[in-house]
Amino acid sequence: MEYIKNIREKCPLVHFITNYVTVNDVANALLAIGGSPIMTDEVLDAPDMQNICNALVINPGTLNENTVKAMIESGKRANKLGHIVVLDPCGAGATPYRNKVINELIENINFDCIKGNISEIKALANVSSKNKGVDADVSDQVTRDNLSDVFKMAKALSAKTGAVIAITGPIDVIVYKDNAYTTDNGCKAMRQITGTGCMTAGVVAAALVANPEDKLKAVTAGIVAVGLAGEMASKYAKGTGSLHIGLIDELSNLNDSLLETGAQIERFDI
Amino acid sequence: MEYIKNIREKCPLVHFITNYVTVNDVANALLAIGGSPIMTDEVLDAPDMQNICNALVINPGTLNENTVKAMIESGKRANKLGHIVVLDPCGAGATPYRNKVINELIENINFDCIKGNISEIKALANVSSKNKGVDADVSDQVTRDNLSDVFKMAKALSAKTGAVIAITGPIDVIVYKDNAYTTDNGCKAMRQITGTGCMTAGVVAAALVANPEDKLKAVTAGIVAVGLAGEMASKYAKGTGSLHIGLIDELSNLNDSLLETGAQIERFDI
Amino acid sequence: MEYIKNIREKCPLVHFITNYVTVNDVANALLAIGGSPIMTDEVLDAPDMQNICNALVINPGTLNENTVKAMIESGKRANKLGHIVVLDPCGAGATPYRNKVINELIENINFDCIKGNISEIKALANVSSKNKGVDADVSDQVTRDNLSDVFKMAKALSAKTGAVIAITGPIDVIVYKDNAYTTDNGCKAMRQITGTGCMTAGVVAAALVANPEDKLKAVTAGIVAVGLAGEMASKYAKGTGSLHIGLIDELSNLNDSLLETGAQIERFDI
Repeated sequence: MEYIKNIREKCPLVHFITNYVTVNDVANALLAIGGSPIMTDEVLDAPDMQNICNALVINPGTLNENTVKAMIESGKRANKLGHIVVLDPCGAGATPYRNKVINELIENINFDCIKGNISEIKALANVSSKNKGVDADVSDQVTRDNLSDVFKMAKALSAKTGAVIAITGPIDVIVYKDNAYTTDNGCKAMRQITGTGCMTAGVVAAALVANPEDKLKAVTAGIVAVGLAGEMASKYAKGTGSLHIGLIDELSNLNDSLLETGAQIERFDI
Repeated sequence: MEYIKNIREKCPLVHFITNYVTVNDVANALLAIGGSPIMTDEVLDAPDMQNICNALVINPGTLNENTVKAMIESGKRANKLGHIVVLDPCGAGATPYRNKVINELIENINFDCIKGNISEIKALANVSSKNKGVDADVSDQVTRDNLSDVFKMAKALSAKTGAVIAITGPIDVIVYKDNAYTTDNGCKAMRQITGTGCMTAGVVAAALVANPEDKLKAVTAGIVAVGLAGEMASKYAKGTGSLHIGLIDELSNLNDSLLETGAQIERFDI
Repeated sequence: MEYIKNIREKCPLVHFITNYVTVNDVANALLAIGGSPIMTDEVLDAPDMQNICNALVINPGTLNENTVKAMIESGKRANKLGHIVVLDPCGAGATPYRNKVINELIENINFDCIKGNISEIKALANVSSKNKGVDADVSDQVTRDNLSDVFKMAKALSAKTGAVIAITGPIDVIVYKDNAYTTDNGCKAMRQITGTGCMTAGVVAAALVANPEDKLKAVTAGIVAVGLAGEMASKYAKGTGSLHIGLIDELSNLNDSLLETGAQIERFDI
């Protein structure tokens, strides 16, 4: 497949209602991989923006009452227009308000993909979890030993929501219907830069727009792309600042040949 | 002229009501060229901030109902105090609400400069345009062939608003009264980093404060400065991440001698 | 003392209600030094976030009526839970609304540390000051000659608020009860990148959580850490863009041995 080439050719216009912490990185990561970002979160403006877009990414990291309205109305519009919609349930499980909002989003909007860390996905699946703000708690971590439990939980959440479920972490798990992939790309130091998850959501949205044939493979390609870019940048980065910049550099230079060579993927029937 | 030297000596304090996507780059670009940024968008705070500032830049990229109030009241205060006011009509044409707000800004505030891409400026001039979110659509692009039409449109908008009209893109067009400049600085890869337009608006505001004798030349100097910085950075950048950082590096090292040598400018009577 | 080691081992979860200009740098600086950031500023969400956090940092740089409510309620919750609370009174003195809000914060919340530039701290101490937006005015600058006056003012403000008072600038002054430190770390070019003060507030909060024995020393260690990182980065930075990235790199590589060797500290009884 030519996942990256397709993104660069179609240049998907992705609308983000996302947190103000990592929004600049999200925009630059999407531009680097060949898409085009637009951010607006006012309910009077955001739903109409969908009219000219290809996709919507919702991340309630720094949610407020006004932007939540914009999320719901934009999500409904995106659904009506048949656009790709991705949820990044940032901080799910951390507070009651956040849980209420995320449930409201899932009840009102059909998502093509829900991408979070293991603590966030557990919170969505109503499995007891711990999280550390927007980071996964160590006690929740996906390992080779608990993989079948993780598949089971993700499969149930996928069945309930109709979405591809993507769990990012040291081992990434991507589940849709009876199929799953795990990927081992990325590097440990990526946990020490903010926004890798948020950037991934945008790249995944672009991958889904440009590669509509197979949702599971498109999401996996998006996740591998960001992991691989971080991995390549970590070879020369002098610290977390230059890792952050290197990751964007590598995304901008990425192509399908590099993706195929570098991808560390395993497929599972579940 | 000593455009850059004047900015570094006067260190203009520029107040921004701008989008949260590129605001960090806007602040760092202004600091790099020798100005000083301040951001506030609460209507109870923002107009009073003008009392200690030299200029105001309004960019409704991530507008909301509250910040729009702050834009209008701060703009009126800036006008009353005789401060430089720059409009970056981010996303003009993309949604009805955005168009309504931008018209309201132009009706209530006198701008010294309106700087946008060709799709945004066409939307302001009520010329049929297409845009791609915050990016210009290819079908709108300025070329050597349609330059006289672009001059005509910009001249009419300048006459109507009293502002220098700056259209940024592969060819930049800057129009005021009967005079125009085009500039060819910049590089293609700059389109793949977010915020170059937003940064330019801040640098232009500082250039106008520090070089009040000739508005057209000051705006042109600001636009060339950012384009040239990107051009110089592109010579060694490894991708779009390091281009972004290199652009700020080059702005911080820029002087009038480099500006004069590097500027690719053409003057037109229109 | 093992200030940095303690931060890296305890990995304090710090909640920020801060400005959207430098928030990404604040998150990356905290991650680089070994902490974990979480940002939320909706009053329905923010106070509850304190339940899983170790500290709160309040920076009203881009305040608005809604986020001010979240600041006050989160601050009260943090106090109730015995968490570290740091105030960065960004832009104090610049506008009447900002002064009113900052006074309200100080009246309602007990701060462990108040960290600002000299103009901001003077504004809090009701000493006549000038400021330049969020930057200190030159006429206010701390020098070896006016150091005893600065100590006196800071000592009174510390007595009034119960907080460690940290004044950052070319010479940093940290005062608590009858003791003071000055530090000379940092470099001139750091003034040309936005957010060094905001990043320092986060690093200071993490240092206070991880090193509870001596508040004055913990704050001083945090301030030295950022200054030293900037100083080390300035040795190879090509401009202000790469200084910004280098500062994060150096924070991520910092350890107690480097801190002890590099610290330029002087102790005073006041």
